[in-house]
Amino acid sequence: MSARFGVRLVNENLSLNMSKNVDFRDWYKQLVTKSELIDDYNLPGFYILRPWAFSIWESVQKYMGERFQEIGVKNISLPLFAPFMDKLEERYEDLFPNTYFLTHAGKDPIKHSIAIRPTSESLVYSDFGRWCRSWRDLPFRINHWSNALRWIENPIPFIYSREFLLQEGYSGFTNREESIDEVYKMLDIYNNIYSDLFAIPVLKGRRSEKGKLKGSDFSTSIQIIEPNNGIGIQAASSTHLGQNFSKKFSIYFDNPKSPGEKEYIWLTRYTLSIRSIGALVMTFGDDFGLILPPKLAPIQVVIIPVGLDNCKNEKDKFNLIKNIKLINEKLKESGLRVEMDIREELKGVPIQLEIGLENLISRQIPLNVRFYNEKCILCLDNLAGELKVLLKKIQSDMLKIKTKELNDCIEMCLDWELFISKLERHSILLSPFCGHLKCEESIESMLNSKGINSKLLNIPFEQPKDYFGKKCINPKCKEKVEFFALFGQSIC
Amino acid sequence: MSARFGVRLVNENLSLNMSKNVDFRDWYKQLVTKSELIDDYNLPGFYILRPWAFSIWESVQKYMGERFQEIGVKNISLPLFAPFMDKLEERYEDLFPNTYFLTHAGKDPIKHSIAIRPTSESLVYSDFGRWCRSWRDLPFRINHWSNALRWIENPIPFIYSREFLLQEGYSGFTNREESIDEVYKMLDIYNNIYSDLFAIPVLKGRRSEKGKLKGSDFSTSIQIIEPNNGIGIQAASSTHLGQNFSKKFSIYFDNPKSPGEKEYIWLTRYTLSIRSIGALVMTFGDDFGLILPPKLAPIQVVIIPVGLDNCKNEKDKFNLIKNIKLINEKLKESGLRVEMDIREELKGVPIQLEIGLENLISRQIPLNVRFYNEKCILCLDNLAGELKVLLKKIQSDMLKIKTKELNDCIEMCLDWELFISKLERHSILLSPFCGHLKCEESIESMLNSKGINSKLLNIPFEQPKDYFGKKCINPKCKEKVEFFALFGQSIC
Repeated sequence: MSARFGVRLVNENLSLNMSKNVDFRDWYKQLVTKSELIDDYNLPGFYILRPWAFSIWESVQKYMGERFQEIGVKNISLPLFAPFMDKLEERYEDLFPNTYFLTHAGKDPIKHSIAIRPTSESLVYSDFGRWCRSWRDLPFRINHWSNALRWIENPIPFIYSREFLLQEGYSGFTNREESIDEVYKMLDIYNNIYSDLFAIPVLKGRRSEKGKLKGSDFSTSIQIIEPNNGIGIQAASSTHLGQNFSKKFSIYFDNPKSPGEKEYIWLTRYTLSIRSIGALVMTFGDDFGLILPPKLAPIQVVIIPVGLDNCKNEKDKFNLIKNIKLINEKLKESGLRVEMDIREELKGVPIQLEIGLENLISRQIPLNVRFYNEKCILCLDNLAGELKVLLKKIQSDMLKIKTKELNDCIEMCLDWELFISKLERHSILLSPFCGHLKCEESIESMLNSKGINSKLLNIPFEQPKDYFGKKCINPKCKEKVEFFALFGQSIC
Repeated sequence: MSARFGVRLVNENLSLNMSKNVDFRDWYKQLVTKSELIDDYNLPGFYILRPWAFSIWESVQKYMGERFQEIGVKNISLPLFAPFMDKLEERYEDLFPNTYFLTHAGKDPIKHSIAIRPTSESLVYSDFGRWCRSWRDLPFRINHWSNALRWIENPIPFIYSREFLLQEGYSGFTNREESIDEVYKMLDIYNNIYSDLFAIPVLKGRRSEKGKLKGSDFSTSIQIIEPNNGIGIQAASSTHLGQNFSKKFSIYFDNPKSPGEKEYIWLTRYTLSIRSIGALVMTFGDDFGLILPPKLAPIQVVIIPVGLDNCKNEKDKFNLIKNIKLINEKLKESGLRVEMDIREELKGVPIQLEIGLENLISRQIPLNVRFYNEKCILCLDNLAGELKVLLKKIQSDMLKIKTKELNDCIEMCLDWELFISKLERHSILLSPFCGHLKCEESIESMLNSKGINSKLLNIPFEQPKDYFGKKCINPKCKEKVEFFALFGQSIC
């Protein structure tokens, strides 16, 4: 099986023994562990991020950090403990049962139990106001790279785990227009990080009334769809909080136009988490392991010495190793991320060079491209240059192919019976929808009653041209159709 | 008062109303808050790191990250919860009473209470073994950038707080020699980060038997001394764990020399925390606020427009602002970190330019150098170049002057009566010491009984040439003197 990629399997235990199409969850769990992204931990539902995963996360942080710096977002660090979370009752209604509480310091009980942050919102809102008193302080943009913790019934590594790494940004403005601009600006940054770094196409859209951040004005989100099994992932979100929270937390500024008058600050919140790595695994993982896009791969090229054991004499062996080390150094100097002879069976390194004595003589280097699942040959004399071109092509092909798959998998559906039967077979559907909370709840309860795990994912910004005159997909609904909404199986 | 630096005080509440020499703790607390390094939080002893502090910490992470990459240290991420901490009884004897315990998830009690990491040690040791089975996996180097939490009676921001950011690195080797090398290599990296980035001179030394990491072979540390008040800070440590913990946690590799035979891995641990920013404040803070070394300063140059209100007409005003913006852009393009007209009274920006209309005509720009507490003039035509030279000189002078102060403040002391009276006046003393735990305890208890808060700080690697024949500083001690040890007031 592994011969398909020329992958060296030093140990058969390392290979996956479940197919993505047969048992997705088992396949996924095996892949993230065996590719050395994570390791299990002494506590169920908690994971260690190994260097392979953490290095990917560091690339995300670097990419995002540069975008943030361009628009003046400053990083801060907030405490882990979140007192007074209950101030945001509406928002935390759902979060409370999933929050960890601290009750002891050493052997001594603490007077009032303290929450461990399930999100940093309440922390920021209670302090934001102290930092913005004058209109001169606005716009004000801060961001927090952190870990958050939630009690999750059925954890899935990266996607839905009990501790997760994330970025939470908060901005404040003097007026509604600018704060709405900010919501879309941040969603665009997320869009770019996925298409540019991850090579994953996304669907930008508005979250439904049911799905939006509770207590907010409106939420937007980035939806990633895995075409093969119709699973949707909310991969990032950007929310317009309006003045709702600033009123609750007394976050205001002195209006320069009418001195002495206080105006509440317009707030936004945007967040992307380590779930992005889960989306990457789901999108590009296959039955042979992970496939990493070149821009994100901690190692882009691995060099495997071939035929060492067949060398006729010690001189040949020495010669081969010496030359491979030279090639390795040269490629590194050219800025490529290269390693020699690492165990990479499932780790998804984009390119694998195989170099033997005969290749040194012919100046032709054979290589496997993990994404194309193909061998090809490059000339040794301009290896670094040709590899760079190839890596660029791989990165762009990955996005291109996945974009086509995404477009092909979304079906328009206007009929309730078809809607039901297609969702049962894990289709991704675009259907007319009135936009009302009650209607959405009624659709979901009808789906649930039939054992269908699908729901409204989001309302894509890119709408079919002609939805006027269509009837809401919910046959019981008499409301006017406002737009087409995306329905599918949501893993989260 | 503030006129001394030409510092603009837009609001007198922003200035410090306590002197470093009068009430150090009050001065320190005011400085870290008013310079916008931290903000108080809803829970006592917890702090928000504001962008000014977090940006400094990010510089530390970047500098250290590059050093780590050079020697193959890989970053990982570990869970916050630390089960089975009790496995390291000896090490955690002291830590237990200061550890937070989790008992509830939502409203439901958890069966076995879980510790929140006071350090990541037990987490690493319990997993290290799974990642290193073969000698081929060694040396193995991992690092964790994280937050750790401890219940502290009298918290001091950065220095001793209830939640703190830190780096904890762990390395494993096949033999003792290499692991000992690693200990000193990491201590050298810490030495360099302090002298190179922070401009703070340090004393490298061995920790005493009492001070070393419990259960380890030996510990080394970096000691920073504040000459003005004789306070010592342990600013980083690097420890040889030997095989002690690998035996407890079954961390072994298969010995290639004698197949089938298991050998315990030699481990080291090294850590530097956000306390480094506390050391920076203590070293370079004065009664007018913070002073930042140019390499570490988030902003190196601030430009203040002067005489805007005195401009005779709108054209002059427009002209001045336009030109200042141009200068700002040009300096930024040259790679300097520059801001216009920020509120920086106490933040310690190294250079402050003051530009008025007459300066644009004369091409002479007056500036204040915060560290020298002096005004000087640079030529507008090569401003970026001259600023870079000046910033380099400031950085190097800061280290030079502090090095001299450090050397001058350490006194040799051979006599017990003098030892007592000098420590009472907060001197830093180098005195002969036998090295025994009991003797150290006896010295400390004698000091304590006299109300003196000093203790053995470390045993400097650089020893006075001639300590043979000297008597241990403890008059009751009959043991042979092994070296000179450093004694002083320790804040931590």
